Amino acid sequence: MTPSLSSTASASEASAANVSPLPSWNDGATKQSILDFVRGVTTSGGPHFVKPEERIAVFDNDGTLWSESPFYFQLAFVLDRMKVLALQHPEWKDNLLYSAVLRDDLKAVAASGERGLLELATITHAGMTTEEFSKIVEDWITHARHPRFDRLYTEVIFQPMLELLAYLRANGFKTFIVSGGGVEFMRVWAEKVYGIPPEQVIGSSIVTKFEMREGIPVLTRLPQLNFMDDNVGKPVAINMHIGRRPIAAFGNSDGDLQMLQWTAGGLGSRFALLVHHTDSVREYAYEATAMGKLEVALTEAAARGWTVVDMKRDWNRVFSFESAK
Amino acid sequence: MTPSLSSTASASEASAANVSPLPSWNDGATKQSILDFVRGVTTSGGPHFVKPEERIAVFDNDGTLWSESPFYFQLAFVLDRMKVLALQHPEWKDNLLYSAVLRDDLKAVAASGERGLLELATITHAGMTTEEFSKIVEDWITHARHPRFDRLYTEVIFQPMLELLAYLRANGFKTFIVSGGGVEFMRVWAEKVYGIPPEQVIGSSIVTKFEMREGIPVLTRLPQLNFMDDNVGKPVAINMHIGRRPIAAFGNSDGDLQMLQWTAGGLGSRFALLVHHTDSVREYAYEATAMGKLEVALTEAAARGWTVVDMKRDWNRVFSFESAK
Repeated sequence: MTPSLSSTASASEASAANVSPLPSWNDGATKQSILDFVRGVTTSGGPHFVKPEERIAVFDNDGTLWSESPFYFQLAFVLDRMKVLALQHPEWKDNLLYSAVLRDDLKAVAASGERGLLELATITHAGMTTEEFSKIVEDWITHARHPRFDRLYTEVIFQPMLELLAYLRANGFKTFIVSGGGVEFMRVWAEKVYGIPPEQVIGSSIVTKFEMREGIPVLTRLPQLNFMDDNVGKPVAINMHIGRRPIAAFGNSDGDLQMLQWTAGGLGSRFALLVHHTDSVREYAYEATAMGKLEVALTEAAARGWTVVDMKRDWNRVFSFESAK
Repeated sequence: MTPSLSSTASASEASAANVSPLPSWNDGATKQSILDFVRGVTTSGGPHFVKPEERIAVFDNDGTLWSESPFYFQLAFVLDRMKVLALQHPEWKDNLLYSAVLRDDLKAVAASGERGLLELATITHAGMTTEEFSKIVEDWITHARHPRFDRLYTEVIFQPMLELLAYLRANGFKTFIVSGGGVEFMRVWAEKVYGIPPEQVIGSSIVTKFEMREGIPVLTRLPQLNFMDDNVGKPVAINMHIGRRPIAAFGNSDGDLQMLQWTAGGLGSRFALLVHHTDSVREYAYEATAMGKLEVALTEAAARGWTVVDMKRDWNRVFSFESAK
């Protein structure tokens, strides 16, 4: 649907009435807050109307669009990749961190902290061209399976959030990912899985370098962090890449707090939402874990009146591979 | 026009036939090379067809979309801004570079080289929030006038390139600016002037920092270079922001060489074009100047068969404020 079609209240309301948007969301205050916001900003002539080109919505990825348990899916890629690379590196058995990875000692890996994880990420993400890296990710993402659900990781995505992405786009929004995950890791599959094109995927990155190799231009990936797109980095990245303040932001952890603050802090109608993982049966229930910690942002949400999704209560379906109700 | 409308050959050909695209371009090999390329990539089922989502076109700004003479327009902003700021800095009269600016000694300013210009850019571009900076640029760009043409700088833009932008977009292309200019300087006016939204403007930047000021989230601009989007930086920035290799690139100087190489180096149909400033009567004629130097790229264009616009020969109208022929 083109923005022009959806920028009139009648068109978007008719669309909402006809297709019954957000079928995996239970009726209630959470779903209603989304519908009310969208109706407000798309109602031409109304007090909350926002021009289509300013309807920017930003989504965290890990824990917001797809699961992040039992640990970040990109970490699973890192661990698998280390094992492949280890075949050419017999000396890795003498390195405490690397050997922990190779014998699946996740506790030791976790104990290495952010510094250890960054080192592993750098080793597995650098030393090749951008095109070679895309191929490596493509091979992995189309084969690796989630340990609990035994599905491709790209199937362990939240059906209600897919519907939300589609609903916003049908109402003239431009949807962006703003994730701590690696930008070139996500771009390989984000368009197919979420309908979000590469130029609307923002993430963390390592340094790349342009060079001519025997007359062929390549971008090589260097073992050096370029940008960490988390916490205070998210508003910075949004400003750098989008250059416009979003009017809606969706996250699930304290790493999304500043993105929600930046979004909610603008003038006019704004929407901020946190996904609270409360469903240990269908997915996971957690708050204070190392990955996806949700504490400060939850307090802020209560104080500011942001929407908080109670996954167990608000979603009648979590994954697309569950049958619809 | 939506990409779906233009992705069929018949629609785009009909459109081309009906509205006679590129009226400010004289008939000849240059114009024909553009028409042929666009017909090829939009001809559904043809050997050169490219899906609409992959029709990415990147444009340099200074010297390509607007003039860059007698010097970069953003430098005019810097010089004007220095004079405003000098009112609070009486000590600047003792600084060789600053006092050169204040007495309009452009020779001394130029002699300070890239380092001097960067210092001036930093002083005038940092020390405020992003919103305050946008307001400063907005005030300047709507008042400052080009010294030779006595027009707003946003009027000293190339009419043939405006037509080219519109023509590509009507054929399903997404158009981006990839410029050495400051990203937050350009975004203030690029949408209104070129129809290119902020999220499709890529440029050089300084570091910004997120902070809460009395409960209000702001991004402050720090006096530190973040990224220089020129030369080898352009393919890096394209990969970082767009994540897809463009199929068409438009530049005018050696600073655009790597962007054109990166674009032309991809598989399938590719288009690379250089604007050669050959018209001293209607605009300027130059090749070996400090700003907009065109030497290596011109040689490469000849070797690779890239299109080179001879401004004097190929454009029947340079600026929109000239009457149409």
